[in-house]
Amino acid sequence: MKLATQNNDTRDGQLIVVNRQLTRYLPAPYPTLQSALDDWQQATGPLQACYAQLSDDSAGQVLDLKQLLAPLPRAYQWLDGSAYLNHVELVRKARGAEMPLEFLNDPLMYQGGSDTMLAWHDDIAFATEEIGIDCEAEVVVVTDDVAKSCDSTHAGKHIQLIGIVNDISLRNLIPAELAKGFGFLQSKPPTAFAPVLVTPDELTEYWHDDKLHLAMNTSINGKWFGSPNCGSDMQFNFATLIAHAATTRPLAAGTIIGSGTISNKDRTKGFSCIAELRMIETIEQGKPTSNFLRFGDTVKIEIVDKQNQSIFGAIEQQVIKA
Amino acid sequence: MKLATQNNDTRDGQLIVVNRQLTRYLPAPYPTLQSALDDWQQATGPLQACYAQLSDDSAGQVLDLKQLLAPLPRAYQWLDGSAYLNHVELVRKARGAEMPLEFLNDPLMYQGGSDTMLAWHDDIAFATEEIGIDCEAEVVVVTDDVAKSCDSTHAGKHIQLIGIVNDISLRNLIPAELAKGFGFLQSKPPTAFAPVLVTPDELTEYWHDDKLHLAMNTSINGKWFGSPNCGSDMQFNFATLIAHAATTRPLAAGTIIGSGTISNKDRTKGFSCIAELRMIETIEQGKPTSNFLRFGDTVKIEIVDKQNQSIFGAIEQQVIKA
Repeated sequence: MKLATQNNDTRDGQLIVVNRQLTRYLPAPYPTLQSALDDWQQATGPLQACYAQLSDDSAGQVLDLKQLLAPLPRAYQWLDGSAYLNHVELVRKARGAEMPLEFLNDPLMYQGGSDTMLAWHDDIAFATEEIGIDCEAEVVVVTDDVAKSCDSTHAGKHIQLIGIVNDISLRNLIPAELAKGFGFLQSKPPTAFAPVLVTPDELTEYWHDDKLHLAMNTSINGKWFGSPNCGSDMQFNFATLIAHAATTRPLAAGTIIGSGTISNKDRTKGFSCIAELRMIETIEQGKPTSNFLRFGDTVKIEIVDKQNQSIFGAIEQQVIKA
Repeated sequence: MKLATQNNDTRDGQLIVVNRQLTRYLPAPYPTLQSALDDWQQATGPLQACYAQLSDDSAGQVLDLKQLLAPLPRAYQWLDGSAYLNHVELVRKARGAEMPLEFLNDPLMYQGGSDTMLAWHDDIAFATEEIGIDCEAEVVVVTDDVAKSCDSTHAGKHIQLIGIVNDISLRNLIPAELAKGFGFLQSKPPTAFAPVLVTPDELTEYWHDDKLHLAMNTSINGKWFGSPNCGSDMQFNFATLIAHAATTRPLAAGTIIGSGTISNKDRTKGFSCIAELRMIETIEQGKPTSNFLRFGDTVKIEIVDKQNQSIFGAIEQQVIKA
């Protein structure tokens, strides 16, 4: 099934169930997505019943995608991994550093801000372009309650919903922040979410081994920028990322775990963030020639199945001057 | 006024208003603390009216402190600063490193996990002592909605509630995590909160310049461990910490901002974490002689006013084997 959150002028919006084609919806029998996640075992039956009704094309109401907020407009936890080591390796190579061998076994993960999540169409608004505004196309999963020390062989069953995000990064603020050792903060402003989250069964054969096996399509100003496969070169699957997050603490229902920027070794697949393109330029030409995002630029991020059906709906954002 | 959250077998508990002596309470006219924070301008009047009623010693019901959860059992954001540079300087000195000069103007701050907050009496449970279990006594503030780029001259007015926490740290996991550059994650398990949060007016002359001017008392196994003054040697006040957090993003109502470990230059004041004592031992004797917390150890953290009245109630936790 597919779930979204409609703006009803409250902080958490109204949970709705959306049909496969993202054209019609029914109000869900839970007020908010968090309330459904809090009671997930009980909630899935009634929610799936709504979804089944929507297979009749006359059921429900016409969906206005513009009325959607992020599926979780605010969440209790957002932990973002960096599971595509090609991305990590490139970042380091550009500055002449090797990737430590332990990165092959020990995931990178940071705690992100979850109090404000952007809708798919929200502007990316900053006072200046000089901070290096970049997109990062990623896959995320949402868990139910995960016990402390849950191991990776049991962690996969906690994946209840899957989605895609634009984990906006302010590249020129990152080096000084990471040098301080306390992680990202100012360099990671609110993240934008595609319109719907979907259950794993909805992804059919494209979801296995706790990975999504489809291309992540990113375009900038209407021009193809990349379509790396999310299932390729992912060093740590979502079960491993969840277990890593839960090593010393439980994860509450509604925890969002991110894959990190999708990145394939095959360079013909393009990119999911501008920083990688600039790294390639630096390696090949000694310096980057592409700009980060400028005011007026647009970013579109979307995943489609083999029938060209958009699975999560598209993220379409414009960068504007605040 | 003083606010707490009573266990009612829900994830967010029931908001209650507690009298100054922490002996009696009235149910609040809002179901949860988050719901009151979401509507703070409207909520303060009715909550203050409950608090006024409680000045009559026969009003309300007898408070059982053991029934209290953390005031926000789960929160949308927890950002912890490190405003006492004496703590930062000592940590670095112990490993032979100078503190960078920019630390005088640029606060350290990390994004902590906020999906699970411990009650004042919850055990600190881990499978092994080898991870270096340590306490960190800190002051926190809770904000209402803060706009992006709010500056420090306007940030202080967003401080709505004040409390104290034990920001438990797993010291032996920190070096490897910080070396990865993505901040704390596994080394910062859930934080424990004292029973009540209080409004700034409740702190009378002890709250000014956006700092709390009282001693933070920590004892370990019933023995005095430290009583540094929270108002001394605090390089960045809470207004500055809030502005730092809001530089590139808004902060949603209910955001918790921490001071970092309370630490005075005057060593006769003792400590708020074991790591500092071990640093002093290392500097003076070449190696630490005190242990981190062991199974069975107890930690008590409390702030009292000049009449010896506990302001927030005490945090009293035992370390146990999970």
